[in-house]
Amino acid sequence: MPKTKRRVFKRDDGRNPDDLRPVKFKKGVAPAALSSVLIRMGNTQVICAVSIEESVPRWMKIQKVEGGWVTAEYSMLPYANPERSRREVTAGKVNGRTQEIQRLIGRSLRAAVDLKLLGSRTLWIDCDVLQADGGTRTASITGTFAALHMAINKLLKQGILTSNPIREPVAAISVGLVDGIPLLDLCYTEDVAAEVDMNIVITGSGKLVEVQGTAEDQPFSKAQFNRMMKLAEKGIKELVEAQQTVSHV
Amino acid sequence: MPKTKRRVFKRDDGRNPDDLRPVKFKKGVAPAALSSVLIRMGNTQVICAVSIEESVPRWMKIQKVEGGWVTAEYSMLPYANPERSRREVTAGKVNGRTQEIQRLIGRSLRAAVDLKLLGSRTLWIDCDVLQADGGTRTASITGTFAALHMAINKLLKQGILTSNPIREPVAAISVGLVDGIPLLDLCYTEDVAAEVDMNIVITGSGKLVEVQGTAEDQPFSKAQFNRMMKLAEKGIKELVEAQQTVSHV
Amino acid sequence: MPKTKRRVFKRDDGRNPDDLRPVKFKKGVAPAALSSVLIRMGNTQVICAVSIEESVPRWMKIQKVEGGWVTAEYSMLPYANPERSRREVTAGKVNGRTQEIQRLIGRSLRAAVDLKLLGSRTLWIDCDVLQADGGTRTASITGTFAALHMAINKLLKQGILTSNPIREPVAAISVGLVDGIPLLDLCYTEDVAAEVDMNIVITGSGKLVEVQGTAEDQPFSKAQFNRMMKLAEKGIKELVEAQQTVSHV
Amino acid sequence: MPKTKRRVFKRDDGRNPDDLRPVKFKKGVAPAALSSVLIRMGNTQVICAVSIEESVPRWMKIQKVEGGWVTAEYSMLPYANPERSRREVTAGKVNGRTQEIQRLIGRSLRAAVDLKLLGSRTLWIDCDVLQADGGTRTASITGTFAALHMAINKLLKQGILTSNPIREPVAAISVGLVDGIPLLDLCYTEDVAAEVDMNIVITGSGKLVEVQGTAEDQPFSKAQFNRMMKLAEKGIKELVEAQQTVSHV
Amino acid sequence: MPKTKRRVFKRDDGRNPDDLRPVKFKKGVAPAALSSVLIRMGNTQVICAVSIEESVPRWMKIQKVEGGWVTAEYSMLPYANPERSRREVTAGKVNGRTQEIQRLIGRSLRAAVDLKLLGSRTLWIDCDVLQADGGTRTASITGTFAALHMAINKLLKQGILTSNPIREPVAAISVGLVDGIPLLDLCYTEDVAAEVDMNIVITGSGKLVEVQGTAEDQPFSKAQFNRMMKLAEKGIKELVEAQQTVSHV
Amino acid sequence: MPKTKRRVFKRDDGRNPDDLRPVKFKKGVAPAALSSVLIRMGNTQVICAVSIEESVPRWMKIQKVEGGWVTAEYSMLPYANPERSRREVTAGKVNGRTQEIQRLIGRSLRAAVDLKLLGSRTLWIDCDVLQADGGTRTASITGTFAALHMAINKLLKQGILTSNPIREPVAAISVGLVDGIPLLDLCYTEDVAAEVDMNIVITGSGKLVEVQGTAEDQPFSKAQFNRMMKLAEKGIKELVEAQQTVSHV
Repeated sequence: MPKTKRRVFKRDDGRNPDDLRPVKFKKGVAPAALSSVLIRMGNTQVICAVSIEESVPRWMKIQKVEGGWVTAEYSMLPYANPERSRREVTAGKVNGRTQEIQRLIGRSLRAAVDLKLLGSRTLWIDCDVLQADGGTRTASITGTFAALHMAINKLLKQGILTSNPIREPVAAISVGLVDGIPLLDLCYTEDVAAEVDMNIVITGSGKLVEVQGTAEDQPFSKAQFNRMMKLAEKGIKELVEAQQTVSHV
Repeated sequence: MPKTKRRVFKRDDGRNPDDLRPVKFKKGVAPAALSSVLIRMGNTQVICAVSIEESVPRWMKIQKVEGGWVTAEYSMLPYANPERSRREVTAGKVNGRTQEIQRLIGRSLRAAVDLKLLGSRTLWIDCDVLQADGGTRTASITGTFAALHMAINKLLKQGILTSNPIREPVAAISVGLVDGIPLLDLCYTEDVAAEVDMNIVITGSGKLVEVQGTAEDQPFSKAQFNRMMKLAEKGIKELVEAQQTVSHV
Repeated sequence: MPKTKRRVFKRDDGRNPDDLRPVKFKKGVAPAALSSVLIRMGNTQVICAVSIEESVPRWMKIQKVEGGWVTAEYSMLPYANPERSRREVTAGKVNGRTQEIQRLIGRSLRAAVDLKLLGSRTLWIDCDVLQADGGTRTASITGTFAALHMAINKLLKQGILTSNPIREPVAAISVGLVDGIPLLDLCYTEDVAAEVDMNIVITGSGKLVEVQGTAEDQPFSKAQFNRMMKLAEKGIKELVEAQQTVSHV
Repeated sequence: MPKTKRRVFKRDDGRNPDDLRPVKFKKGVAPAALSSVLIRMGNTQVICAVSIEESVPRWMKIQKVEGGWVTAEYSMLPYANPERSRREVTAGKVNGRTQEIQRLIGRSLRAAVDLKLLGSRTLWIDCDVLQADGGTRTASITGTFAALHMAINKLLKQGILTSNPIREPVAAISVGLVDGIPLLDLCYTEDVAAEVDMNIVITGSGKLVEVQGTAEDQPFSKAQFNRMMKLAEKGIKELVEAQQTVSHV
Repeated sequence: MPKTKRRVFKRDDGRNPDDLRPVKFKKGVAPAALSSVLIRMGNTQVICAVSIEESVPRWMKIQKVEGGWVTAEYSMLPYANPERSRREVTAGKVNGRTQEIQRLIGRSLRAAVDLKLLGSRTLWIDCDVLQADGGTRTASITGTFAALHMAINKLLKQGILTSNPIREPVAAISVGLVDGIPLLDLCYTEDVAAEVDMNIVITGSGKLVEVQGTAEDQPFSKAQFNRMMKLAEKGIKELVEAQQTVSHV
Repeated sequence: MPKTKRRVFKRDDGRNPDDLRPVKFKKGVAPAALSSVLIRMGNTQVICAVSIEESVPRWMKIQKVEGGWVTAEYSMLPYANPERSRREVTAGKVNGRTQEIQRLIGRSLRAAVDLKLLGSRTLWIDCDVLQADGGTRTASITGTFAALHMAINKLLKQGILTSNPIREPVAAISVGLVDGIPLLDLCYTEDVAAEVDMNIVITGSGKLVEVQGTAEDQPFSKAQFNRMMKLAEKGIKELVEAQQTVSHV
């Protein structure tokens, strides 16, 4: 594996290894939703919308679990890539990758919320990828927390909620090893080239919600793992700040 | 049912019976697509995107049909309505209403294009409804023609197409009878109240592509039918002009 | 396309452009059904049967809609064409064309019936095409109304219904443009050759229930549309008379 | 349970225990098919149709099996019973009972045919039950053989086949034990009451093709089994004669 | 067909025509189940497990049938054959052969049990084939009865059942004609070569529960049928004895 | 959260926090497979089998990727738990949890193998859980590597492979936080109670293949994460040794 070229390493878009892509949030893209945000991280764009349902899943009723629920659905719009992808409904089922992603988004958001304070209702999180250039699942989590925050603020203002169920912000980012160099926030071409691909979800106070690291080809050392974790922590901090520009208003 | 209140009739948004809602086009909402447009008609918003595939459907190969193909897929995003709707993939199949709509969009666009001049390739039209307030299928057709026009211009400029396959513009509009009064471009609440619901697709030169009229409850007279057709013709003319502002640039 | 050969036009089966094919009804083909009719229009044959269910669809219960429901299912028997067609159950789902047709049949029949007078029950309409030679959807509607009428008469006689829910008869017919000439009641080969294909549902008193006109290749003029409508009106009148020979007995 | 009431036993329709129901064949009910027959056994009515496909199943091509194939599909029309049954396509799959029946029909017909002499083609057998009153699977086999015979005669006459692939006729019948009494050709109410239900397929020369006996509640003795087999042999002989009135013309 | 070679006939594994393969039962292979047995007949191995559910199928509740239910599911593990077979879930549905087998197992076991004495509960029988060498459905029935017996003993000991619902043992075996010679307990290569294939289910007292005989290619005579039945009766007697070594302890 | 009870902590089965459950391997449980192992970790039992297919997935052919493939399927046998679980084929699709697990197993095994050296063939890994008591996915990976090793040895001995594609062993283990205490190898009751659940896949030389850590309720600190990683490393070392007792023979 390449080793000593660290000094001269250059990313296609000129970023340093520890740079995020430019992050932007646009509010209200789906006006019928309870709240919505379009998040852009470089060329990756995801519509994040929150809807409310005054009911909880069947299993909660059966098991008599108190409080509410937060669940997520994720979809790649067919024109999110230069080569059109088939709608999943055409295949008749949600594929494995999509299921993994929507379970991850749901778990991450639930970790940020005290479900007991939600009351007996469900917040539906929808993430539809408008343009895909790597990191769609982490952008979905980051954007979705902003939308969720806006939704909660609205419900508090309307008196539907009386105390704020949000514990602290969460955001997510990808990190990876390309030619042995740890990179923050991989774009698609970097993701394809990466030997290791990690997705990390961290809270505003720096606690871990989810750590997923996968050797794509060759196993990796613990030292490499630790360096990637550091990059992720740096990135998350910046993302949590960016979220506040939209969700705190 | 219908009485004599025609004089005093007022639409919720203050429009006259023969007024369209404000129409706006926004280009490039889905940058990875060959072309894309966000069409707004009042509160109805649809993302219209065109992708290209260098191949034709299997039946064309088997039957040795020359030329290309234009096909459409339509989807209601789950947060397009105040009450979240279930994704079709969750039900495991495309429902009947969706199938009717995407067949209608496909037929309407094919009527506007000389498929022989497309070469052996398929143009995929995707319509995803971002906000639904009535008339989503007709907005999809109108927006989609604009996107298709942009896509064709691009392919001509790139030399992929050598002669323009577009015969003339098409646009679509809904008309209906509410309390016996013919209305142009129904919004959702009008659509629900309508005794008759029509969707009309007409070309720039005023020829008919598709006429679909349905009595929701009571059959209607031919005189009523004719008055609705007139309204539709007026609306289409305005839409074709609006399309040119985006697709001719 | 259209030229001046109108004078010399001849249909394969010798009919004039405004002739229906011979129409015949045979009662009681499915003796276990509440009522049944085999309708023949030329070579097209459809089994139309009515069954009763003492319940209404779930959505009516939830929305507390009073009265009953009429719904239709349509199927092409695999041996209805010289080349056997696959059963839809083998593909695992109802295809788009079938769904469009059964929705059309259901709407058309509901327009002929005062659902409130049905009581809280569902009439199931089944149409199975025994032989297909064009116009199966319109023959289904025409045959089905006859069967429905017989079913209602039976229910009135049995005292299950106390007042007649039928408002007026409905029948349906196809019209089209072949070489620019408007033809009534297209057989399969004419249907394939048609530039425009229309299906019209009209009541006994001449009111419109459904108008569906589709340009198969080239858009058509309003004058052409009007001439086709006239043909349809003539055909429907004859069909409503023919229905009475079977349903009024 | 069986007692000593054998002497006084009476069937609802007045038949003796060893009587078939009246059997009738009507040719040509599905004119587009290669051949078709409507078989009636009492109130049970089944449309039996044969179609031809100039191809063989994929597994025959892969395994390079010479000759042709005969396969069957069976369906209960929704109005075949007083209480409407749901179409299988609505459930999205063929249920277990239907699959068992169509496999049985296919095997039975293949036993009557020398597949090598069919050439590389498939005969599709379709059985659609128009009215169900017990014994629909055995009526399907008996009717289907008649239709198959007619189809083969047609293909011989047309020179598509040059030597007759039919080895000998097959027919099928049900027998059962009701109150310990062996009955031939059970109607629906007898079938429901039966302790043992058997379906037997036998050739014209008296050879066994298929023997299926099932204890519905209590196991049965070999002596009872033998008596039922005798009844079946008597019934089949009569059915084979009846078949000849239609298929030999 | 070959006739006079009976004297010299030799089976691949050296058995006489009327020999079973060695039968072994191993208890407790699935410790979480209510009871479980691994049955081996030669190289055929099936895991048979019984689970209990304190509920009955919906149709029993609706029809208010008293007592309990016994139902079976059967599956071929993908590595049961030298060439891996696809899991049925990958195809998305249970195939016809599997459905036939699980219906047969369920019926056979129910014939051995007085369902009224089970109380309002369901016994689920699962059969998973670990190695397939012919006779998997009959081995499933034989093994399953042993497991069921153990389960019932457990429930009696626990006081959940107060009287023994088992009427008498059942076991199953295959017989067939290979080169005209009746063979007991066919292994896979014999099964493939057989002209006739029968599966017989018989009780400990020699009563018939299920008789299924199928001509694979040529019909067979009644004399042949009777000789196969005799072989089956001999085999079942030995199997019922073997069952007792495991289930009576 | 509880903190200072570490001293007195006791696991239900008496293990120390850093103890594995007893691990056992049994070879040859599925004799028709290329290789098979039954792995037991405490009460968790998984059948791991390897089959070979002389072909590669379609995407490898299309993208012309050289070498072979390793893929996994995982299934919970319905009687693996005290309460019977429904077979996935009954629901008609593989659920999200199952898909995540089989993707994880596949990736982990591929990381242990040089796919180029496999030649153009696929090794199918099947994991069927016979008894479930926590850690079924990690037991599947550990058992599956042993089976894979045996399979490769067989292929080398048979000359089908000429050089050994195995890079180094892999094994997997779960760790978690229960009452704030890091535990190794969670059984089911511990898994349910855990605040954090991690699954770690590590190679024989201590490199990371997969790190998956999930906060079930509350986020966790990096210090906690590090302590869990240490436990996992200890467990994996012991598992890799245990594997050698079976796979190196």
